[in-house]
Parts: sequence; C-alpha cells; structure tokens
Amino acid sequence: MVLPILHLNGYKIANPTVLARIGDDELEALMRGYGHTPHMFVAGFDEEPHASIHARFAAMVDDVMDEIAAIKEEAASNPDMPRPAWPMIVFRTPKGWTCPPEIDDEVTEGSWRAHQVPLSNARDTDAHLQTLEDWLRSYDPDDLFDDGGAPYAATRAIAPEGELRMSARPETNGGLVLRDLVMPDFRDFAVDVPNPGSGPVEATRQLGEFLRAVMEANMDNFRIFAPDELASNRLQAVLEVTDKVWEGEREDDGTHTAASGQVVEMLSEHQCQGWLEGYLLTGRHGLFTSYEAFIHIIDSMFNQHAKWLKVSRELPWRRPIASLNYLLSSHVWRQDHNGFSHQDPGFIDHVVNKKAEVVRVYLPADANTLLSTYDHCLRSRDYVNVVIAGKQPAPQWLTMEQAEDHCTRGLGIWDFASNVETGEEPDVVMAAAGDVPTLEILAAIDIIRHELPDLKVRMINVVDLMRLQPEGEHPHGMSDQAFDQLFTTDKPIIFNYHGYPWLIHRLTYRRTGHENLHVRGFKEEGTTTTPFDMAMLNDIDRFHLVMDVIDRVPGLGTRAALLRQRLSDQRLAARRYARVHGADLPEVANWVWPDAGAETREAMAGTQDTGGDNE
Amino acid sequence: MVLPILHLNGYKIANPTVLARIGDDELEALMRGYGHTPHMFVAGFDEEPHASIHARFAAMVDDVMDEIAAIKEEAASNPDMPRPAWPMIVFRTPKGWTCPPEIDDEVTEGSWRAHQVPLSNARDTDAHLQTLEDWLRSYDPDDLFDDGGAPYAATRAIAPEGELRMSARPETNGGLVLRDLVMPDFRDFAVDVPNPGSGPVEATRQLGEFLRAVMEANMDNFRIFAPDELASNRLQAVLEVTDKVWEGEREDDGTHTAASGQVVEMLSEHQCQGWLEGYLLTGRHGLFTSYEAFIHIIDSMFNQHAKWLKVSRELPWRRPIASLNYLLSSHVWRQDHNGFSHQDPGFIDHVVNKKAEVVRVYLPADANTLLSTYDHCLRSRDYVNVVIAGKQPAPQWLTMEQAEDHCTRGLGIWDFASNVETGEEPDVVMAAAGDVPTLEILAAIDIIRHELPDLKVRMINVVDLMRLQPEGEHPHGMSDQAFDQLFTTDKPIIFNYHGYPWLIHRLTYRRTGHENLHVRGFKEEGTTTTPFDMAMLNDIDRFHLVMDVIDRVPGLGTRAALLRQRLSDQRLAARRYARVHGADLPEVANWVWPDAGAETREAMAGTQDTGGDNE
Repeated sequence: MVLPILHLNGYKIANPTVLARIGDDELEALMRGYGHTPHMFVAGFDEEPHASIHARFAAMVDDVMDEIAAIKEEAASNPDMPRPAWPMIVFRTPKGWTCPPEIDDEVTEGSWRAHQVPLSNARDTDAHLQTLEDWLRSYDPDDLFDDGGAPYAATRAIAPEGELRMSARPETNGGLVLRDLVMPDFRDFAVDVPNPGSGPVEATRQLGEFLRAVMEANMDNFRIFAPDELASNRLQAVLEVTDKVWEGEREDDGTHTAASGQVVEMLSEHQCQGWLEGYLLTGRHGLFTSYEAFIHIIDSMFNQHAKWLKVSRELPWRRPIASLNYLLSSHVWRQDHNGFSHQDPGFIDHVVNKKAEVVRVYLPADANTLLSTYDHCLRSRDYVNVVIAGKQPAPQWLTMEQAEDHCTRGLGIWDFASNVETGEEPDVVMAAAGDVPTLEILAAIDIIRHELPDLKVRMINVVDLMRLQPEGEHPHGMSDQAFDQLFTTDKPIIFNYHGYPWLIHRLTYRRTGHENLHVRGFKEEGTTTTPFDMAMLNDIDRFHLVMDVIDRVPGLGTRAALLRQRLSDQRLAARRYARVHGADLPEVANWVWPDAGAETREAMAGTQDTGGDNE
Repeated sequence: MVLPILHLNGYKIANPTVLARIGDDELEALMRGYGHTPHMFVAGFDEEPHASIHARFAAMVDDVMDEIAAIKEEAASNPDMPRPAWPMIVFRTPKGWTCPPEIDDEVTEGSWRAHQVPLSNARDTDAHLQTLEDWLRSYDPDDLFDDGGAPYAATRAIAPEGELRMSARPETNGGLVLRDLVMPDFRDFAVDVPNPGSGPVEATRQLGEFLRAVMEANMDNFRIFAPDELASNRLQAVLEVTDKVWEGEREDDGTHTAASGQVVEMLSEHQCQGWLEGYLLTGRHGLFTSYEAFIHIIDSMFNQHAKWLKVSRELPWRRPIASLNYLLSSHVWRQDHNGFSHQDPGFIDHVVNKKAEVVRVYLPADANTLLSTYDHCLRSRDYVNVVIAGKQPAPQWLTMEQAEDHCTRGLGIWDFASNVETGEEPDVVMAAAGDVPTLEILAAIDIIRHELPDLKVRMINVVDLMRLQPEGEHPHGMSDQAFDQLFTTDKPIIFNYHGYPWLIHRLTYRRTGHENLHVRGFKEEGTTTTPFDMAMLNDIDRFHLVMDVIDRVPGLGTRAALLRQRLSDQRLAARRYARVHGADLPEVANWVWPDAGAETREAMAGTQDTGGDNE
C-alpha cells in the first residue's frame, strides 16, 4: 500500500521551499487539483511532547490507510467506480528538527542552515565539539546502546524483520522477481524481400506488429510508454490487444483510453522515463518510444539510470533487471512538416559518454534488421538500448535470414551493393549507418555503376554502432584485424552516418585507416523542407557522396571532372524543384535500387509523402 | 498587460489532454493552487451563434483586464500588498472548431483527428477536394477578399497597425531595446598573485564580487537565475546589493528573499532556463549558475535556444541579443560529499554539437582568468557561453595582466612551468584545460623537475576550448601553423582535461600531431570520496601523469622504471590513506607550486575541506 506524504520542512539549501510559503488554502487546492484528498499534519513548532506527536501521527496514518483500503475494496467490486481522490498527508515540521536551536548565535533548527553540515568545524573548536556532544546526548544514547556501543535488544527490536525491512523487499531488488518475457518468434513478422530494394515498408509499423504479439503474451509485465507518439511512431498495432490506461474522464472517442491498459501515454517525456524506470527497477519489462529530437528532455534522467546500472553491476546481491529500451523514430532526416526544432540526433552522443558496459546503440536500416534488433533488446539485461528507426515508407534490403546474420555481426559487407570479388582490393569503401544514409549510399553506388563502372566499391552497413570501437573500449568492439579487413588500412572510406559525424571519428580514431575516413552526417543544417533537400543541406545526399568519391579516390578527380560538375548541377536542379513544388524530383523521390524489380518500381512511384506528419 | 489563458480543446495528436479530463472542480482547484483566480469560458459545443460567443468572450476579457488593472493600481500604492491571485481564463472549445464535422465518416471537429492534416489526400480525391472547398467557403471568403484574392480594406482594417502588431512589438525583437551593460572594470577585482601557485582563493567567490558590482550598475536589466545554488556556487556577494525576488510568504530568516530583487532562485533548472531565455529575448542581460552535473536537465531547452540563435543570425531584421551565459560550478572533480550522481561533465559535449558560430566553452584555471573570461561573456551577443570554474580554495597561477593576455589568446604556454628555452625543442608537451586538471599537471611537472630534471617540458593551458579546432571549423579555431608550433608535430602530448577525454580528440583529430596526443579526463569513474582519490579513479592525478610521460617519451621507459614503480606505489599509499582518514595525504592535499612562497605554503596547509558541501 502506497501512502503519499509531502514533507514540508520549509527550506532547502539556502531558500524557503515554494510549497511551504503559499499558505494552507492554496496548498490544499493544489493537492486537490492533483487529484488527492490532503490531510494536514503539523508538529515540532511548539512544546508538544514527542510521544504525543507520534501518537497523533500514528492515528492519522491509520485513518489514511483505512481510507486507501476502503477505496481498494470498492474498486475490486465496482469496475465502473469513478477515479477516487487518493488521500495523502502534508507533513509540516521544522527543518533540522531536534538539532541545536542555535549554533554560533545563528538560528539553526527550523532554518535553512540546518540543510548543510551544521557543525563543520567540530573537529577544530572545543565549543563546536561540545555542541555536537550535547546534541547527540539529547537522543539519550545510553538508553539505546550498551557500553560497547552496540544497540540493546530493545533498540534492535524496533527494526522490522525479514522482508518487512524496506531494503529487503523483493521489489526493491527487481531482478529477484523478474520473469523472462514470453517471446514470440520475430521471424514470423518478417517482411518478404524478394530482391534488395523491394518494398516500400514502414519499418516501425512492422515492429508494431511484433510488439502486439509480445504484448499479447506478456499482459502482466510488459508496458509501452509514449509522450502521445505511439501512433505517430506507427506502433498502434499494440492497441489491438490492450488499451491506454487513462484515469481521467473517458469518452468513446477512438483514443483507446480505458480504466486499465498496458500502454501509458502522456505528453511528458519526464513522466514516461520515470514510469519506465520504476517499472524496470521493480522487475518488469518495457520500452519508451519518442521522437528522436525530444528524447534530450530526459538526458539527465538517463544519466542517473545509467549511473545506477553501472554501480549496481558492482554489487553482487543486485540481480540484473530488464534493459531500458528506447525506440526513437520521427528522426532527424524525416521532419518534412516539422522542421529544425525537431531535428537533433545528439542523444546518441549523450548516451555514449556513459560506461561502455551499459550502453548500446542500434541503427537498423530496414524492417527485418529492426525486428531482429528489437528481439535482442527485449531479451537483454542491465543495458540501455537506443534503437533509432524510420517510420516512413522505405525500401527493404535484407531477407530475415540475412538480417539475423547482419545483426549478429553488428555490421557487414552488403554483397549485392559491392562489386569487389574475393581476391580483389576495393578502390573505395562506402559505409552507412541509419536508414536514410543507407538509402543515399546505395543510390550513390547506383550512379557510380553507370558513370564509373570500373570503380571497385565495397558497401558496408553498420547496425550496431559500438562495433566500430576497439575491443578494449567496448564489449562489442571489433578486433583491429577484423576492422582493417573490412575497411582497409589505405583506401578512402566514405561513411554516411545518421547523426553528428564526429562520433564516427571518435569511435574509430584508434584504427589504422582512420586518416582515410571521411564522414558525412547531420551538421545542424535544417528547416521544414523535403527529405532530399534535408539530405542535401547536410551533404549526405547521393550526388554529394559520389562527388566525395571523385574527390578522394586517387587519380579519379581529373578523369571525372565533368561528372562531378553534372552532379553538382543535379543538386541545384533538385533544390530548385523542391522550392517550386514543395516535393522532391520524382526521379529522386521514387528512385529504386536497380535490382528491386518492376513491382517495387510501381509501388515506390506512389510513396512521396504528401500528407501531414505529427506535432 | 499579460492575460494568461489555458486553452483546453480536449485533444493532442492521438489522446485526450489531461486537464480537459479532470473535471471543473479539480481544474479550478489546480489553478487556485497555482495562485490564480480562474474564469471559465465554454464555447462551440452548441448552436450559439459566433457573434454571441465573441461578445461573451470580449466581455470576459474586459472584466479580467479590469481586475488586472486594479491589482496593479493597488500594488503601485501599497508596497506591503499581499500576493494577489492573478486572474486567468480557462477557454474550452472543440478541437478543430469550425473544421468539417466528419471526414470519411469519421468525427473530425471536436476530435484528435483534427490535430493533424485532416485532408491530406485533397490533391488525390475529388471527394476530399470538394470537402476542402466547402470548408474554406464556410468562412465566406467572398466577403473578405476581392476577385484578385486581395483582402478588402475592411478586412485589412481588422489587423492592428504599427507597434500594436504582435510581431512588431519592440520586445519581441529584443535586440532593438537592448542596452549595453554598464561594466565596472573587472581588473579592480583582480586577485594578487605575487608568485604562481599563491593563494588559496575560491575562484567563483571572487567572481561574485565582480558580479555584485555589475549588478549594482545595472539594477534594471541584469538578473541572475539559480536553482537554489547561488550561495553554494559562492556568488552570494550579489545579495549585498539586491535581494531574491520571492512572491510567496516571507519571513525574517536570513534568506534575502523580498518582494522584488534581481536574483531569481527556484530549485527548477527548467524554470531558471526559461526565465533567462525570456529575459534575454526581450532585450535584457543575465546568467544562469548551476551545478555542472544537473545542467543536463535543460539540454533540450538549450538545443532550442541554440537553434533559435542560429536561425535568427540569418534574419537581417533580427537584432543581436545578449548571450546566454552559464556559470557551472560544484563540478565533477569536487563532489567530496555528494558523489557519483553529481559527477557529469558532459554538458560541454552536448553544447559543441550545435553550430560553431553560436557556442563558446571556457575552462578558466584560476580566479583572474575567470574574471577576464566573464567580462568577455557579459559583453558578447548571440552566443551561448559555457563557463566552468571551481568554488573550492585553490592556488592561483596568473596575475591579472597575464590572465588578460592568456584569455585573449584563449590558450598559451605557461612559461613559469616550462623549462624549454627558445631555440630548443620540448621532449614532451603537458597541456591542461580546467582548474583541477591544471593543478595536477603542475604537480606532475614539479615531480618531473626533481626526478627527471633533464626532461624538457612545455606546459600549455587552454581556457577557450574552441581554440583547439581548425580555423575552418570554428571562428575561434587556430591555424595549423600556430597549433603545430605550440603542440609540435612529433612530440608526445599529455593533455589533462576537465571532461570526457574524447572531446579533445574530436576537436584536434585534423591536426598533424594528433597521433601523439594522449588525453586524460573523466571516464565515468566516481563515488563519494576525496578530491585526490577522484583524480586517481580517472587517472588524471599527478602520479599517473608522470607515468604517462615515462610511457610516452621515447627511451625514457627503461631509464625511469624504478621511478614509475614508486609513483604507482604512491597512488596506492594515497588511496589507502584516503580510505582510512576520509581525507587526502597532507603532502598531496597541501602541495604547493615550488615558487609559491612560504606564506602560501602555510595558507594551503589549512585548506583541506572538512566541512559540508551542499545537496
């Protein structure tokens, strides 16, 4: 049974507290406005003996507990019971209650001065040492401890025993009560990929189908939290098997709100993060889906959870808990209707500052890799998993079998997009991490195949960002041998990345070929514009990527000068078209990988988003 | 005159809004709890003609405006007037009021469906196009616009003229009304530094003296915002010339709270950030002081302000506003009483992801450099200035004249700590950014002078972090020539940094000598322990720095093996002492730079913090 208590002792470090200074009327109104029935308790401001204070408080706690029990009893028998105004206690006592009234002639008890170490010089001055002794003796230690300083049996008896001790409650060590999720086979939700580039498919919508099955199989220990972005991020399929819990007034308005449900939506990233943390720490499973840019709202809360995980791993008695899983969508590259305020991929940078043992970052490039990735995340323990995936119709690259292998490796060569035979050296390595950067790299390779057919191109996709780090830096880190074999030690590497480019340099700066690494990514250029114009604003677009290849492959520049000029002209043409039509050039927007097949070509012709995004 | 209105239209993207579903009683209680007198207005749910709705609302607005005017009138004549319950309006209308009631047989007006683009397929289907036309015609455009589509004079007359147009209000373009601060001479607050290493001085307390003078000279357009950390960060001198504005009940309790004042303290980083942004955007000046670790709470708000600054620089009619100045103290290296939860220097990494033209990061190593830095920040425009400085008693390194030169350069060789004559090449470059890392580098150099007297050491201190970047990357960026001259292209560089080490690699990875750069910094290891133990936990301590030199200067390793072993033993001895005594070895805690002088040696002997820190 939970009994909320607002303890008002009047001060914090150096100021009064707000709620202690608004008066009882406003305070009571505020608590009622928050949906509570406040009970006011005041103590310590007069000569009332402590015994009587304890008796008064015990009686109030009993009353309030009875009220809570009565509410629960009615709720059990009456499903249509209106939301109760849960009782709570406002507990007013002096700050530093029972500490020395004054120290150095300054009021201390009942003052902000009691917040800090009120006798910091006890070891320096006899006066303070005496004050300290008098203070401690005021608690009658002789009645509590024997001559050896050990508590008497009567003192020890005050503490509850066994699981009644707060720190011994099983739910405070969530791993103790954690049950594995019953996991449906994610392969059953695979997208059929007859050829690379087929589709289009909305990756997160496909994940939603899988999550619906996960939800259905775990209705008592799996929850999804979202700041009004569940449907916007395309996960609404879960609402076929559960509702959104909603304690406010409910209407038949198609919002799937109900008295109980496993989805919790509130437009407060702080609430979502806090609820999920509490749910995980008490031995359950869940995920938090948000717009990529706005997850920064909980940066500080993430910090504390990551720090908690780091320290708890060092405590043998702490059992592992389920990982904190993020699904970030509506990402930086597809804010067609929202613009600059919604464009920020920096949460990845924030996350990787925390301990390598704790953090994981995944950038699946299509639906099957997203499914395989999320299956892994939901089974993991004691991590923070950040998964970033698009929600817009996009081409699919890997069959489920290929996706599983790819996700298990964390990165790899995409053979269908490479033209380097075994035994040959590539002229250039073209790598990508993230769905939109992968699309642009492949479109660039398509151009290269037509314009520079002799150029040997190796295409690499990275889904697990931590693989780029050296073995010694991260548990997922790759050996230098393996890295050098993939990325070469002496060939130019054009890396098209979802986020701020320098992170790729940070992860790879110890690698032999780092000097040859050229990273494109978000460089804080954006506005409300078309998807391809966004790519061009940050130079991650297909045309610029080919220009980067021309600039970096030795000897190519002079031979490809005309091509380079045409590519630069194509960028201008694309921008002009976007400005005039508010949409991308059809040949750009509807581009499909050459081997995708006619069916896909038709399907893609209709995908350019003309509708409204959210927020 | 400001009239707060809570518009409840019932829905957001896909859910009801909380306040629209708690009922009028709780909602009114909540507004009263927030200190307001709510006026309820409901419209659009019945057949009431719009003219009558507008008349009702106009009448309510008049009444509320009169109430506000009356309050202001009384306040003007009665300084002791109790805090009024400011009136506000709760404005209930249907979501998408006056849009098509239904689209595709789905309720749209009064529904969450109206949040998005309700007719996204208008260009695809005739039915939707017809619906759109009927909708737009429902506003009688023929009465508003002529055949050419231009608004009739009567239509235009509805809009106010000149400065009555909201977007033309001078305070919405704050730069128009911005007045320069009257700046006292920061040199008048210089700390006397007879020899390098003298002191100790609390840097931020010295800054507080300067800020008191700034405040005194600018009582109508300068404010300091703090989450109950003004005094904790040692800026309380400003309270000698102003108070903390406090609208709640006030008592004579030594908190310096008053009905008006230029300091605003509330334990909400969100409130402090929002208030300061509003104050700057309307043409005033200010700063926000916070604990370093907790400034992450406003990461997302910082993002939006930085984005606003970036875009506003591109709008010629937007006049520059005062910079958003942070003073972050109680930093990662001195959380002696708070521990791991208070240790996070990552705000720097978050900030440098934003446009180089907008962000500045300063790490002054002593009081005079802090004073010179802050004078610069308070005079600047359109930046976000992040200044990180310690509040603990610490040695001082530069005279004010030296500090000015150093801050103007942004970085430089500290001659007193180097033993490389002009014409000589250093054997090793030892660089530092931040107060504690600088102290440890100098203590390491002191060891080297005794143990490896022939080693040529160049000591560099960096105060303006952005100087490390190439010219092309940041306006403060250094030329490669200048950088190479300072840091050499082929000598080992041991860089002791305040924050996460990889940022230094990120800023310098294009530099010739980058391969020789070895950075020490915070690697997310921390707990509640002594200052020197914190340094050792992250290997930024003097002993480990000398070990790094031994490991990296060619040929030194074998000759200095015994010294290296002794240094490693000294680390163990220091840790053992800290564990037993809860304080650092006196010879470590009280170390002073050899040239500091006897007076300082005595002074330092008493500085080891035995008292309480805050929070």
